[in-house]
Amino acid sequence: MSLENDFNDYRAKMNEKILAQGDTNMKRLYALDASTYQNGALSVKTKEMLGLVSSMVLRCDDCIKYHLGKCKEEGLTTEELFEIFTVANLVGGTIVIPHTRRALEYWESLSNENQVK
Amino acid sequence: MSLENDFNDYRAKMNEKILAQGDTNMKRLYALDASTYQNGALSVKTKEMLGLVSSMVLRCDDCIKYHLGKCKEEGLTTEELFEIFTVANLVGGTIVIPHTRRALEYWESLSNENQVK
Amino acid sequence: MSLENDFNDYRAKMNEKILAQGDTNMKRLYALDASTYQNGALSVKTKEMLGLVSSMVLRCDDCIKYHLGKCKEEGLTTEELFEIFTVANLVGGTIVIPHTRRALEYWESLSNENQVK
Amino acid sequence: MSLENDFNDYRAKMNEKILAQGDTNMKRLYALDASTYQNGALSVKTKEMLGLVSSMVLRCDDCIKYHLGKCKEEGLTTEELFEIFTVANLVGGTIVIPHTRRALEYWESLSNENQVK
Amino acid sequence: MSLENDFNDYRAKMNEKILAQGDTNMKRLYALDASTYQNGALSVKTKEMLGLVSSMVLRCDDCIKYHLGKCKEEGLTTEELFEIFTVANLVGGTIVIPHTRRALEYWESLSNENQVK
Amino acid sequence: MSLENDFNDYRAKMNEKILAQGDTNMKRLYALDASTYQNGALSVKTKEMLGLVSSMVLRCDDCIKYHLGKCKEEGLTTEELFEIFTVANLVGGTIVIPHTRRALEYWESLSNENQVK
Repeated sequence: MSLENDFNDYRAKMNEKILAQGDTNMKRLYALDASTYQNGALSVKTKEMLGLVSSMVLRCDDCIKYHLGKCKEEGLTTEELFEIFTVANLVGGTIVIPHTRRALEYWESLSNENQVK
Repeated sequence: MSLENDFNDYRAKMNEKILAQGDTNMKRLYALDASTYQNGALSVKTKEMLGLVSSMVLRCDDCIKYHLGKCKEEGLTTEELFEIFTVANLVGGTIVIPHTRRALEYWESLSNENQVK
Repeated sequence: MSLENDFNDYRAKMNEKILAQGDTNMKRLYALDASTYQNGALSVKTKEMLGLVSSMVLRCDDCIKYHLGKCKEEGLTTEELFEIFTVANLVGGTIVIPHTRRALEYWESLSNENQVK
Repeated sequence: MSLENDFNDYRAKMNEKILAQGDTNMKRLYALDASTYQNGALSVKTKEMLGLVSSMVLRCDDCIKYHLGKCKEEGLTTEELFEIFTVANLVGGTIVIPHTRRALEYWESLSNENQVK
Repeated sequence: MSLENDFNDYRAKMNEKILAQGDTNMKRLYALDASTYQNGALSVKTKEMLGLVSSMVLRCDDCIKYHLGKCKEEGLTTEELFEIFTVANLVGGTIVIPHTRRALEYWESLSNENQVK
Repeated sequence: MSLENDFNDYRAKMNEKILAQGDTNMKRLYALDASTYQNGALSVKTKEMLGLVSSMVLRCDDCIKYHLGKCKEEGLTTEELFEIFTVANLVGGTIVIPHTRRALEYWESLSNENQVK
């Protein structure tokens, strides 16, 4: 599970440094980032799917990893994931394909699935 | 309801021209665009929300209008819409705000709501 | 000065609607947007220049207009403005040129200058 | 032919202002923009096609209009144009579709073709 | 030639997984990606140049590598390649420079050229 | 200081190759890139801050590294840096956060600061 651990360890270490040194506004942005994905009119799962597809079309690999982890926690199935992949690749174009390859690799690392279900 | 009609009329007229003259691959892309948003592991409503948030972070006003119309058809509430707006503005940044202003104006035109509920 | 008034009127009207209907997180984002540009280790003028150049490379015309207005208030000169334009066009490429044309038109509307100084 | 004239008139007027007031570096960028599309190892037509597809995937309507005009001068056919459209929409995704609609409208204005050939 | 092999091996492995698990729409997108670059009104070489320059301005390193390989197969010369690089860096700005550095490194790996021709 | 050396060595090696083989226009673009950041109506420090924030919102890690090095030379303080980070993350959204993490790591490598000041 090194992909997952490497990502989480680096993320945690650097976020801690940013929050320790950042100004009040940066701290507010981080707080807002946390509160936005909480349960509301839309469920956490739906919001995490929105965060995932947004990260894919904007092609941010680390953002994709973060939301994949959250989607996994919220019970997203691999079948649902692939439909998100298709929307992202259609809307964002084939430049999203390389990010989809890395997303699937990370998802499989998360879920310990090494083969096609 | 002129915002809605103007958008739909121009879109229909030009899509017709593109499909009449476009090569087979362009026709396939349009067909794929239609089939991707059909019901599957994810509902049409969820897919349209994914299309909407993607269009917002990529800042495509016409794409936003299209998905707002579809979200309206699928019964998306204004409260749910605002949570999508928040995710889009958080992930994509304050450059999404002007598109959010136009999105809300279009949504209100769709729903004939001229005032805050 | 219709360019300036049109922009400000529409912006104020729609922001009011967004804040009236938006969830707490959207309100926080708007508040953060205001507090980030306040005086700190960097001056308001420097922060507005940062906001302007960011808006130019991200090609958001309305964001550009907003920061042009603020830069004007902070005493930015036309000579300084053109150096920001050059950085934006160099970093962001010639796709920024059309936005530079509209930015200059808006700047001249702000400053009541209709001809080359 | 108002689409074409409107675009060219505004572009010429504002470029003149930018070059009159801009610093040396801005003038160099404009000069470089002109020299890059001249005949070389690649023909002017090929370079203009490269400029067009780049402008499409970056979704810059005014850049698209400019290169459409140049492609027309270089003898690009409507059939070739549609293959560029397909590449742009495939690589850049369906967010390019609205720009394709406007591109086709402008192309037809350039070529005085009001109907499908 | 490890750069080339590493890219191709990972790409092939993950594409196979995506196609095995992906829904029909994802398979259609992959098929469309293949058919779009086939010979038509524009030659394969021209289409691959369009794919390359699009990938450069959108700053997708893996997409650039893919199209560099195809351009090599189609007989693109290093002199032609550098003219594509210039268009991409001009239109897309200096943020394309780092991708140009990696593109040249990959191109040299493809062509076994370690020095200036 | 390996992060800094690795970046500079690779950058220097590949830039040399690009300039050796590139056409005149590419050489002009590199020259323009150098002259744009020289002292003018705006100071070098201000221009480098503009270059940094632009690179952050456009999410180009190597461009960020380059401008961080220049900002360090110009005496930018860590407190000022964090205010640039906040503007970048606000305007460009939370997709800028992963780049901010890497930017801070590089900045600390530049300044030999391993802990919070």
